[in-house]
Amino acid sequence: MTALSFTLPATIAAITPADETWRARARERLSNLTMPTWAMGRVMDLALDVAGMTRSLAPRLDRRAIVVMAGDHGVTAEGVSPYPSEVTVQMVRNFIAKGAGINAVAGVVDTDVLVVDMGVAGDVSDLAAAGRIVSSPIAKGTANLAKTTAMTREQAVASLEAGIALAGRLAPDYDLFGLGEMGIGNTTPSSAIAAVFCNESPERVTGRGTGVDDAGLRRKISVIQAALDLHVPDPSDPIGVLAAVGGFEIGGLAGLILGAAAAKKPVLVDGFITTAAALLAQALAPDARDYMIAAHRSVEPGHILALEKLRLNPLLDLGLRLGEGTGAALAMPLVLAARAVLTEVATFGEAGVATAESAFAS
Amino acid sequence: MTALSFTLPATIAAITPADETWRARARERLSNLTMPTWAMGRVMDLALDVAGMTRSLAPRLDRRAIVVMAGDHGVTAEGVSPYPSEVTVQMVRNFIAKGAGINAVAGVVDTDVLVVDMGVAGDVSDLAAAGRIVSSPIAKGTANLAKTTAMTREQAVASLEAGIALAGRLAPDYDLFGLGEMGIGNTTPSSAIAAVFCNESPERVTGRGTGVDDAGLRRKISVIQAALDLHVPDPSDPIGVLAAVGGFEIGGLAGLILGAAAAKKPVLVDGFITTAAALLAQALAPDARDYMIAAHRSVEPGHILALEKLRLNPLLDLGLRLGEGTGAALAMPLVLAARAVLTEVATFGEAGVATAESAFAS
Repeated sequence: MTALSFTLPATIAAITPADETWRARARERLSNLTMPTWAMGRVMDLALDVAGMTRSLAPRLDRRAIVVMAGDHGVTAEGVSPYPSEVTVQMVRNFIAKGAGINAVAGVVDTDVLVVDMGVAGDVSDLAAAGRIVSSPIAKGTANLAKTTAMTREQAVASLEAGIALAGRLAPDYDLFGLGEMGIGNTTPSSAIAAVFCNESPERVTGRGTGVDDAGLRRKISVIQAALDLHVPDPSDPIGVLAAVGGFEIGGLAGLILGAAAAKKPVLVDGFITTAAALLAQALAPDARDYMIAAHRSVEPGHILALEKLRLNPLLDLGLRLGEGTGAALAMPLVLAARAVLTEVATFGEAGVATAESAFAS
Repeated sequence: MTALSFTLPATIAAITPADETWRARARERLSNLTMPTWAMGRVMDLALDVAGMTRSLAPRLDRRAIVVMAGDHGVTAEGVSPYPSEVTVQMVRNFIAKGAGINAVAGVVDTDVLVVDMGVAGDVSDLAAAGRIVSSPIAKGTANLAKTTAMTREQAVASLEAGIALAGRLAPDYDLFGLGEMGIGNTTPSSAIAAVFCNESPERVTGRGTGVDDAGLRRKISVIQAALDLHVPDPSDPIGVLAAVGGFEIGGLAGLILGAAAAKKPVLVDGFITTAAALLAQALAPDARDYMIAAHRSVEPGHILALEKLRLNPLLDLGLRLGEGTGAALAMPLVLAARAVLTEVATFGEAGVATAESAFAS
C-alpha cells in the first residue's frame, strides 16, 4: 500500500456499503436453525450485520483490539470538568499499568488494549520511546473552543488521517475493533458535535460527563452555546466542525472508523465521545455507518440522540458513563455469540429436528 | 455430606441471606477505583451482589456451567405449542451433538453445558447409559394440567430434591451456574405459575412461547384459566403449585437454585421458564432470591412481571425467546467483568491519579 491510500479522500472513496447478498445468505441460514424463527432476536440481527460487513458466513473475529485514543482540551479552562487535565496523562499511565476499567474488562474478553496519544498535554515521551503507546500527537491539547477554533483545518485533517493510517496498520492483524477514549473535558466537544449533526440545542445533548454539579452543568451548556454562536459550525462541512469544536482524539477515532470501514472490519462504538466521532465519520462517508455496531446506551443524554441520528440501536444499557472503551469491550462477547450462532448451530435438516411446519403437516 | 442434607427442608434451612458486610467492603473498594463515582453503573451493582453472595472480594468464577433441564408436558395435548413433544428429545440429542443455540453461546463464554433428563417422554436411555446426560427422570412427562394435577405432591418434592442433589454434586466443581431448559409446552405451566405467584390473570402472563398464532394464544390462555379454576393453586403452598400446574424440569430448576443458594453460589436465571422456577424457589425460601442474577428480559409478557415479583432487574434486553440457557450464557461475561472491576482496577491511591476532590482542593 502506498501512503496515498491513507489520505482522507482515498479512504472515503474506498468505503462501500455492507453487502446485501451476504446479509441475505446469512438470513437464509439463520432462518433454518434448530430454534423457533429468529428466537435469538438481536443476536441474530447482529449476525446479519457482521455477515454484511465482512462478506462472510464465518467471519474471523478472534483478533480483537480496543483502541483508546487520548487527547487534552483547552476548554477545560472554562471549568467544564471536575477533573484537571493532568488526569488525562495519569490515566494513560494507568492504562499502560493495566490498572484501569478498560484493562479489567478487556482481560475478560481476551482483547488487546492499544493506547494512542493523539494530543495529550502532559509528557508521555517515555511511553512513546518505549513503544508502549502509539504516538500520533497533533499538538499538546486543543485550543479553548469557547475562545477560538479548537484546532486548524490542517490539524483536523491530520487527526483524521492519523486514525486512518492506524486502521491501515492494524487491519491486517485485527478482525474486530472497539473504540475507546480518554480526555478530560471531552464530553464538551462531543456535545457540541452532537448539537451540530443532530440539530439539537446544547441543553438536549449536554450531560454531567464525569460528574459536574448543577452549576457546572449550566456552565457547560453555556460554554457550548457560546462556542456554537462563535463558530456557527456547518454540518455539511465535517472537517470544519471538527476544527471548530472537536478534539484530536475525536478526529483520530473518526479516522479509525473510516479506515476500518474501508477495510470492511466491524467497529464497536462505545459511549458518547466515540459516538460523536461516529457522527463525524458518517458525515464524511455515509456508508461508514454500515460498519458500526453500537455497544451500549450511556447515561449521557446526547448519546441516544446521536445513536438515533446514526440509526444504531445499542446492544447494552447498563448505566455506564466511563468511556475508555469499556462498553465496547462489554459488548464484544455478543458479537462473538452472533458469529457462533451463524456458524455453529445446526439447521433442522442437519440435526433431524422437526419444524413447526412439519409437525402441523404430520 | 450425608444424603439427608439434600432434603428440601434441610436445604431451605441452610439458605442464608447475602452478606451485607461483604457488600459494604465491595462498595468501599469500588468507590475508590480510578474512575468517576460508580461510572460502570450496573456492572458495579453486580459486583456488589456477587461479593455479597460469595463472601469475597475476589470470588472464583472460572468454573461455569449451564444446567439445561428437560421434561415433557401432558398439556401439549391441548394444542398449546406449534411443536410436538418429540422435539424435546430431538433437542436433547441436539444439545449432546453440540448443534443447538446454547452450545454455540456457551462455547464463546467457555462454559460447560450439562443436560439433565427430568422427565422427557422420548427414549434417552442410550444417552443416560453413556453418561452423556444426567438422568433424574421423575416420570415420562407430566400429566395434562388442564384435566388433572400435572404431578403428585411426592413427584413435586422428588423433582425439587433431584435439583438440590445435583447442585450438591456440582457445587464443589463449579463457581457460577446458569439455568437452561427444554420442554415443548413449558411456557404454559410457567404462565400458570407466574399467574399464581404474581397474582395476575392468565392474559397478562401468557405469550406466544415458541410461536403460536392468535388462535393458539387464545387457546393457551383459556387452558391456563381452566387449570387455575380446576386446581385453585395456593401461592402459600409452593409444592402444591408445582404439583398442580408445574413441570418436572421446572421443579428440578427450582431445586437447583435452592441447592446453589445453600452453597452460596451465584445463579444466572435465563428466560420465562427458569424465572417461573425462581418464583417457586423464592416462595420456598425467600433468601434464595439473593443468589439469583437475572440475565435478560425476554419477549414473553409474563417474564418481566415475574422478575418484578423477584425484585430482579435483568442485565440484557435482546429480544430473546429461545430458552436453553442462552440468555444466561450471554450474561456470563458481564458477571466476569463485574468480578474483574472489583479485583483488578487500581484505586486512585494505588495509581497516583488525582480525584475530583483533590483537584478541587488544589
